[in-house]
Amino acid sequence: MAQEFGLGRCIPALSERQVVMSKLMPAIVKSEPKAGVELRELPIPSIGHHDVLVKVKVTSICGTDLHIYNWDPWAQGRITPPLIPGHEFCGYVAAIGNEVTSVKEGDFVSAEMHIACGKCLQCRTGQAHICQHVKIIGIDRDGAFAGYVVIPESNIWQLDSAIPHEYASILDPLGNAVHTALSGDLAAKTVAITGCGPIGLFAIAVARACGAAQVFAIEVNEYRRNIARQMQADLILDPATQDVRAIVRDHTNGYGVDVLLEMAGHKDAVRLGFDILRTGGRVSLLGIPSRPLELDLARDIIFKGATVLGINGRKMFETWFQMTALLKAGKLDLHPVITGRLPFSDFSKGIELLNSGKASKILLYPDGVDSAF
Amino acid sequence: MAQEFGLGRCIPALSERQVVMSKLMPAIVKSEPKAGVELRELPIPSIGHHDVLVKVKVTSICGTDLHIYNWDPWAQGRITPPLIPGHEFCGYVAAIGNEVTSVKEGDFVSAEMHIACGKCLQCRTGQAHICQHVKIIGIDRDGAFAGYVVIPESNIWQLDSAIPHEYASILDPLGNAVHTALSGDLAAKTVAITGCGPIGLFAIAVARACGAAQVFAIEVNEYRRNIARQMQADLILDPATQDVRAIVRDHTNGYGVDVLLEMAGHKDAVRLGFDILRTGGRVSLLGIPSRPLELDLARDIIFKGATVLGINGRKMFETWFQMTALLKAGKLDLHPVITGRLPFSDFSKGIELLNSGKASKILLYPDGVDSAF
Amino acid sequence: MAQEFGLGRCIPALSERQVVMSKLMPAIVKSEPKAGVELRELPIPSIGHHDVLVKVKVTSICGTDLHIYNWDPWAQGRITPPLIPGHEFCGYVAAIGNEVTSVKEGDFVSAEMHIACGKCLQCRTGQAHICQHVKIIGIDRDGAFAGYVVIPESNIWQLDSAIPHEYASILDPLGNAVHTALSGDLAAKTVAITGCGPIGLFAIAVARACGAAQVFAIEVNEYRRNIARQMQADLILDPATQDVRAIVRDHTNGYGVDVLLEMAGHKDAVRLGFDILRTGGRVSLLGIPSRPLELDLARDIIFKGATVLGINGRKMFETWFQMTALLKAGKLDLHPVITGRLPFSDFSKGIELLNSGKASKILLYPDGVDSAF
Amino acid sequence: MAQEFGLGRCIPALSERQVVMSKLMPAIVKSEPKAGVELRELPIPSIGHHDVLVKVKVTSICGTDLHIYNWDPWAQGRITPPLIPGHEFCGYVAAIGNEVTSVKEGDFVSAEMHIACGKCLQCRTGQAHICQHVKIIGIDRDGAFAGYVVIPESNIWQLDSAIPHEYASILDPLGNAVHTALSGDLAAKTVAITGCGPIGLFAIAVARACGAAQVFAIEVNEYRRNIARQMQADLILDPATQDVRAIVRDHTNGYGVDVLLEMAGHKDAVRLGFDILRTGGRVSLLGIPSRPLELDLARDIIFKGATVLGINGRKMFETWFQMTALLKAGKLDLHPVITGRLPFSDFSKGIELLNSGKASKILLYPDGVDSAF
Repeated sequence: MAQEFGLGRCIPALSERQVVMSKLMPAIVKSEPKAGVELRELPIPSIGHHDVLVKVKVTSICGTDLHIYNWDPWAQGRITPPLIPGHEFCGYVAAIGNEVTSVKEGDFVSAEMHIACGKCLQCRTGQAHICQHVKIIGIDRDGAFAGYVVIPESNIWQLDSAIPHEYASILDPLGNAVHTALSGDLAAKTVAITGCGPIGLFAIAVARACGAAQVFAIEVNEYRRNIARQMQADLILDPATQDVRAIVRDHTNGYGVDVLLEMAGHKDAVRLGFDILRTGGRVSLLGIPSRPLELDLARDIIFKGATVLGINGRKMFETWFQMTALLKAGKLDLHPVITGRLPFSDFSKGIELLNSGKASKILLYPDGVDSAF
Repeated sequence: MAQEFGLGRCIPALSERQVVMSKLMPAIVKSEPKAGVELRELPIPSIGHHDVLVKVKVTSICGTDLHIYNWDPWAQGRITPPLIPGHEFCGYVAAIGNEVTSVKEGDFVSAEMHIACGKCLQCRTGQAHICQHVKIIGIDRDGAFAGYVVIPESNIWQLDSAIPHEYASILDPLGNAVHTALSGDLAAKTVAITGCGPIGLFAIAVARACGAAQVFAIEVNEYRRNIARQMQADLILDPATQDVRAIVRDHTNGYGVDVLLEMAGHKDAVRLGFDILRTGGRVSLLGIPSRPLELDLARDIIFKGATVLGINGRKMFETWFQMTALLKAGKLDLHPVITGRLPFSDFSKGIELLNSGKASKILLYPDGVDSAF
Repeated sequence: MAQEFGLGRCIPALSERQVVMSKLMPAIVKSEPKAGVELRELPIPSIGHHDVLVKVKVTSICGTDLHIYNWDPWAQGRITPPLIPGHEFCGYVAAIGNEVTSVKEGDFVSAEMHIACGKCLQCRTGQAHICQHVKIIGIDRDGAFAGYVVIPESNIWQLDSAIPHEYASILDPLGNAVHTALSGDLAAKTVAITGCGPIGLFAIAVARACGAAQVFAIEVNEYRRNIARQMQADLILDPATQDVRAIVRDHTNGYGVDVLLEMAGHKDAVRLGFDILRTGGRVSLLGIPSRPLELDLARDIIFKGATVLGINGRKMFETWFQMTALLKAGKLDLHPVITGRLPFSDFSKGIELLNSGKASKILLYPDGVDSAF
Repeated sequence: MAQEFGLGRCIPALSERQVVMSKLMPAIVKSEPKAGVELRELPIPSIGHHDVLVKVKVTSICGTDLHIYNWDPWAQGRITPPLIPGHEFCGYVAAIGNEVTSVKEGDFVSAEMHIACGKCLQCRTGQAHICQHVKIIGIDRDGAFAGYVVIPESNIWQLDSAIPHEYASILDPLGNAVHTALSGDLAAKTVAITGCGPIGLFAIAVARACGAAQVFAIEVNEYRRNIARQMQADLILDPATQDVRAIVRDHTNGYGVDVLLEMAGHKDAVRLGFDILRTGGRVSLLGIPSRPLELDLARDIIFKGATVLGINGRKMFETWFQMTALLKAGKLDLHPVITGRLPFSDFSKGIELLNSGKASKILLYPDGVDSAF
């Protein structure tokens, strides 16, 4: 049955490959173009010269995986089943291709899941994170919701054993937060974060660790606001019931915030965010609106002398160095964001929790939940 | 009659002032809250301790002056008659206040017409050009469409005699172009300019002088496109009849332009501008849309990793140093933009020409058109 | 006797001045061109239109004051007695000139003691901190080692009552530390600080607060190393007894530090600093070597692709906003650096302590040591 | 005899290689550890999977090649004969390895000759030009003074046929000039270039093309000053006979230059360069001093608030995009710098000319001088 997956399809660039193992592995599979996934037993994938086979230790569920599970219009336009999703993980190197030199069997690793082409203008000028020919592992080819995942050597991120498994599995979204927060000056600045999903929550920790003078966390969902409180945002605001504009003004000498990290992607959040931005401030946009929205360029950007930055992915690999350094230094306490730890068999339960809005980051364990946590 | 102007009103911050002269001067006056202006004889204004009285040699008409003349909704909301408009000029120092030390009678000068408060966060951190308490000479108090104009010493810009009168009178809009163009890297980049009013046309010259690899001038008005050609844009494109997106793509290896200087303020121009911007590009927005417009933040900014900068006025005084240096070095030929030279008595003729779309920058001479040109 | 001070000399630019008070004040005076100072009773100085008279609450002793006291070659070349030194202080506004609008009697203030000319290229392009015509209060004119000090309105820094007196009196050297540390990226970086005088010690706090991943404090003086430990540097190293190069290498994956903050001004520290800087790193130089020194530009800067920044004073007034924000947010614990609190009458005792190397920052109280601390 | 070269040694990383051709090629060879080179017939080298074999059309002599020829102390410490030197060239693709996808036989190419490791911190954060494990083709392995040269695909730079052969062969040193000049703002700035070897001369063209307001070329050698004049520097100065400090001051309103591009590497030039730099200016150091030199850090960098940048190689591949764009736009006339065109057989004559100081950039043609020039 599993054979129909034709997993080889997922790494078609590799002309020469070797079957490194003949055992089976568990995998969460989007097997049909409809809502849901299936848990299957599939052969462990083979690797090419430049690839690394990683035994997955912990993986975690992203909002993107919800889209894929729910089979919404974005998923229908982007995903071609069968596919193993999953792009947040950590694990141990199980095998390496014959040209791989930078890691060896047993190494503790995670990976940048955006595979950049390496040959376009962007890739050749330090902007590989916006490569136009990017392929994403877990979206365009088989991902980490499995016992094993294949990663090109160039994308492997070797980890210090000082980084706990839990944190190592969420470097992808933490990297989004770090990239967004550190895309401009943050030290001694006032910072508003609109939207407190996992990335917004991580951004609270990053902003605090990097010297933000005040962090305003703005979120309509009470469950998320409670986590924002645990993350120690200075002020947690609910735009549904509070006059956020007036409160921010009162706390910033009437100026507004120096920095806006937009992580909601909702038009009301974007609108509010620009309203509370001070003249001369910086906006970093990460949240992805589902459709075009209206902006008053004159008031919001031009007369304000604002700087607006579009943020995508993680800088390769500056962001990875940054987050590893912050984690190793013990500067980030991310535990409040991790609200669930489940075995693979409970994947659908994780999805339900996320769909209910009563969860933030949920970890999955292919080999059972680690009792150490 | 002129007395009703109560010119003292225009510089109310100065508690002690002296009448330096008792003669009269010609002035173009917005005397009533309706369309049109009047040419009058008014007393030469008195100055305070920190002021400089400048005898106007050449002044020029800005699009803003058109709004004031036509008494459109913006003017109705911002202007309080009676007012002498005019904020582009050069002239010679006629008198100085008793605390003025940096210029003396007879000096050749122009001025930054945005009077920043000097005390707000923006003013105290190098962003005086976006001071929130700015007062603009020629808008909020009497301006340069007169024989004489009063300028605070802090705003005077002393000129080298090597700068011709004509160029000295248009430093305000040239400064807009320089500020916009040099708000990011330009050297060896491809640059699109949407909108070829005087500032857009100046920007062609600035971009060429500062190493732009290709300059695309995009404009629907044929008269303006013809001037863009004289300014030596590499490609002059008419979005009404040409497939600008395809042409730009063909000339940029399929990537789009590195830099967009948006100077039209029209939603179609903004839309087109973002469409032709390459992934990772820079947008500097100067043109002011008259109302909010729709943007696809996901496609235009976020996935594109774009940098969008709001541009207002001129940096005080970095922009002034830059444009003076470029002019003195002979790097900018701006003559094609100057399409008219008129005496004050022909002011309405200048307005007619501008309203017809068959003019670009028109110079006015209080003492008669200089025969030297 | 005190009359011979001719204090009016110290603020000669003010042509019109008023005697605001006729009372006397205590002042520490460098009265003769030789070592030592005298404590005297002098008339409270008068102020000009744009001046603010501040009643000094707390002032503190800088290394520069040691040079003046000891009358070393630098002091002999720069200082013209009689002079009241002192350029670190806080206090309350006692009187204001008739054109002063931004503060009022009773306000809690400190001040930027570098008076920039406001008219040179540097001043007009956001670099007033390196104005070439700078006059320094406490060096070029009478300073804060007195009951009252005269400050131009432009240089006054208004303080929130949340800032404790002790911190308010040391904003000048704290500003040096903030300017140096934040002259480039710091977040998630490894940082070495060579020299742990008060500014180096403050820099430890600033680097930690702004996200430095590791802070290496390097200092030969044991007393200072002990304070560096209290400031929670990650590693405190003694170059006289430890192999700093090897230790830093071991703690930075063999690369060296990302950032060097050089605050010793000693050739051995500079040499060591460049040696432990990683390829592509940033050096901010604040410590002032007393004479030229040898650098291997090829190895230290060119092949290393290093960025070397000269740091002087505090950015006006960006640095002031930054440090106020960090202090208000409670991000900086500076108490270990404050090692003495003395009344004016014990000034010489403070100098002795500093000359002995057994003190760091010493506060002086004109009206007696505040019992609140 | 040629067999002893064991050319396979030069590309040892390639485990699998194929002999693509069995013909011989001419090669200029450093065969012994002593002064001089030999012209030989050697087998065309074989290539690995990721390599490109390029038939050399034009190559040119760098100062580094002089060191190798003259067998000076640097060469003795760095070069291991036998070696084919040469790292400036252009040519046509003759064969490609079986994993090469971005170029094909017949393509017109040049190459970045610094092979970065791709795995260190610097390489993974956009600073591959300062990779600490760099290997340089023509220094660490066989280079371009031959009929054919082997280049890893990652280092190939594909050229537009609009770029003339002559310019295509000197992209390496032109890239040094572009990297140095554009390592900071240049537009509307005054620029001094100390040292007018080929790179300094190229920098004149780049600075002019990118908007420098004034370019001061400073050089003791008359032959070079004459070329600087042809490159249209605004002022050409001889420090041996002219008071450069005074002249620069006079031409910069007493401030000194905004930007110093140091390309001499001689202590007197460095000294002079810092002396004429304005407070707040930028220094980009490219010239490599042969030994440590004395700097007055206090005066030259710290009080001056200077920014000093170490420049090495070319940014991969931002510099390559920049110079290609400038060349294609016709912004750079480099012909005055090319002072000789020789066949391979006249290599020693080229060296003699360079040693005499009566030459600048000399081109070599393996197949005879192209009559087209």
